[in-house]
Amino acid sequence: MTAFDAAQLDDIYAFAVQLGKDAGRMLLEAAEARYDGLNGANGDDAHVEKMNSVDLVTQTDEDVEAFIKNQISHRYPSHKFIGEETYSKGASKDYLIDDEPTWCVDPLDGTVNYIHLFPMFCVSIGFIVNSKPTIGVIYAPFLNQLFSSCTGKGAWLNERQPLPLMRNPIPPMPPNAPKGCVFACEWGKDRRDRPDSNLHRKVESFVNMAAEIGGREGKGGMVHGVRSLGSATLDLAYVAMGSVDIWWEGGCWEWDVAAGIAILQEAGGLVTTANPPPDLETVKIEEVRLGSRLYLAIRPAGPSEGESARQGQERTVREVWRRVRHLDYARPGA
Amino acid sequence: MTAFDAAQLDDIYAFAVQLGKDAGRMLLEAAEARYDGLNGANGDDAHVEKMNSVDLVTQTDEDVEAFIKNQISHRYPSHKFIGEETYSKGASKDYLIDDEPTWCVDPLDGTVNYIHLFPMFCVSIGFIVNSKPTIGVIYAPFLNQLFSSCTGKGAWLNERQPLPLMRNPIPPMPPNAPKGCVFACEWGKDRRDRPDSNLHRKVESFVNMAAEIGGREGKGGMVHGVRSLGSATLDLAYVAMGSVDIWWEGGCWEWDVAAGIAILQEAGGLVTTANPPPDLETVKIEEVRLGSRLYLAIRPAGPSEGESARQGQERTVREVWRRVRHLDYARPGA
Repeated sequence: MTAFDAAQLDDIYAFAVQLGKDAGRMLLEAAEARYDGLNGANGDDAHVEKMNSVDLVTQTDEDVEAFIKNQISHRYPSHKFIGEETYSKGASKDYLIDDEPTWCVDPLDGTVNYIHLFPMFCVSIGFIVNSKPTIGVIYAPFLNQLFSSCTGKGAWLNERQPLPLMRNPIPPMPPNAPKGCVFACEWGKDRRDRPDSNLHRKVESFVNMAAEIGGREGKGGMVHGVRSLGSATLDLAYVAMGSVDIWWEGGCWEWDVAAGIAILQEAGGLVTTANPPPDLETVKIEEVRLGSRLYLAIRPAGPSEGESARQGQERTVREVWRRVRHLDYARPGA
Repeated sequence: MTAFDAAQLDDIYAFAVQLGKDAGRMLLEAAEARYDGLNGANGDDAHVEKMNSVDLVTQTDEDVEAFIKNQISHRYPSHKFIGEETYSKGASKDYLIDDEPTWCVDPLDGTVNYIHLFPMFCVSIGFIVNSKPTIGVIYAPFLNQLFSSCTGKGAWLNERQPLPLMRNPIPPMPPNAPKGCVFACEWGKDRRDRPDSNLHRKVESFVNMAAEIGGREGKGGMVHGVRSLGSATLDLAYVAMGSVDIWWEGGCWEWDVAAGIAILQEAGGLVTTANPPPDLETVKIEEVRLGSRLYLAIRPAGPSEGESARQGQERTVREVWRRVRHLDYARPGA
């Protein structure tokens, strides 16, 4: 077990926030170069002109990860580093997070968005202590939205607006949730058209959540809205804001969610598994395992008459589980 | 027929941009009052505390529309005004836009988002001359994104970034579109779980667009991403940015889309009907009718070898039509 005192954590937190800002600025500058500069006067960019959007984005992704990794190893040489780019090139898909202090980083979440200059892309920097996401920094530079948290210090939008946004008081979960909830979900990359593919399991689940009450053989959830942003990291940040009530997703990796989970938990949200257990009505609701690739997140909630905040969140978890299919995202190495 | 000279249009355009900024600021201030001020020290808000979120939002919607309407009638007393709130309270659902100069306004698009403080809400102000959307102003104050256009003067993000964003050169439509495209769509309010309901027609269409090539009996479109923002107005603005390649939707009203169509057309995009005509391979692709409630938008495109920009857009329209169902959104009065 590693222990950090308050001053050490403060130092790491301030470093992480600055790192997120710097990395986000690199993402935005590289994006702007793609639309402003490439065919302009800058002769140095000649080699870049031969690359297509996807190559350019891959290059940016690698550059930003290398920048972050270098900054961390310079400042905290004893800390472990797990980044999307370095991991993806490795042979193994093992879960590598243990009790050592570990940085878990996605230099660019929302890659498809970034390729298309769709604004919902961000850098995600999580710092994990004793296997627990402790510091989270997410910066979406096109939106100029910076989310940050450190255990015990609150969760913040742009360093001054506490999360969740609505907090005087924090609203309880709606009595008939998922009715009244904003539901965020993602279509993902697995588009196989087979009867039991993840695509069809997901869509069946989405339709259950969306359909009128009484529809879908009683599974209709009549959520208030269905949203898909194309970034797991920003989905989690928006749950922490309270803007999204429920996020349900499979297939993410730990660097997609480490920072978001830190921020959401610090804001008062709940994160558990996406896949409904057999005894879903009664099972104890466990905290998500970071490497599980299956995530169900519920926004920070206030208590209502007769129900604590946690009870309202757990009730919502069970109502979601009643309506969703199991997803099949095993770890390749597991 | 009404004709405005360049100076008159300049004047109206500048007025509309300022109006959008002011109205957007009202939306943001009312949102902030909901999370910062309601239970704070301000005794004047006592009556507000008794209202729930939905009541507060309805009140804001009405207040902002009244503000916009008053500003317009003061400055341009001869112009017609059609706003969502005033229209919705009227008995008829007739299409009221004719050749008179007409302001077509949604004081708050993305109402569900606004209720939940999900950032994708905006004010939408369109100015229509001779039935053609001529000026468009969309302001999303939480995102600080202002979209504006006037026929002949270009389309702009935040008054300085020309649209589409990617323009050196503007990329052609992908050769295998919809593959490679970001596809935006909305689940909407019609959630009836009947075999042929709009919900099921939409979802079938979404899945066709998303599924692997070769899947769905040849209809699989393998789009690069599926996005749902919950605001028709911002969907159109994002198509004008080039961030969304294809938007397909039914059920919107003219105030949801008037400003967005003005901006998208000025940026070089194409807007036609969502519902595939019987002779979809050969039919001449017509400009959308503003009151049709059925919209298919394609982003601004550049030419490729052997294909003009317009040819690439029209090819994409036909590829979408091959994959989508008819939607059933008649005008109640029609």
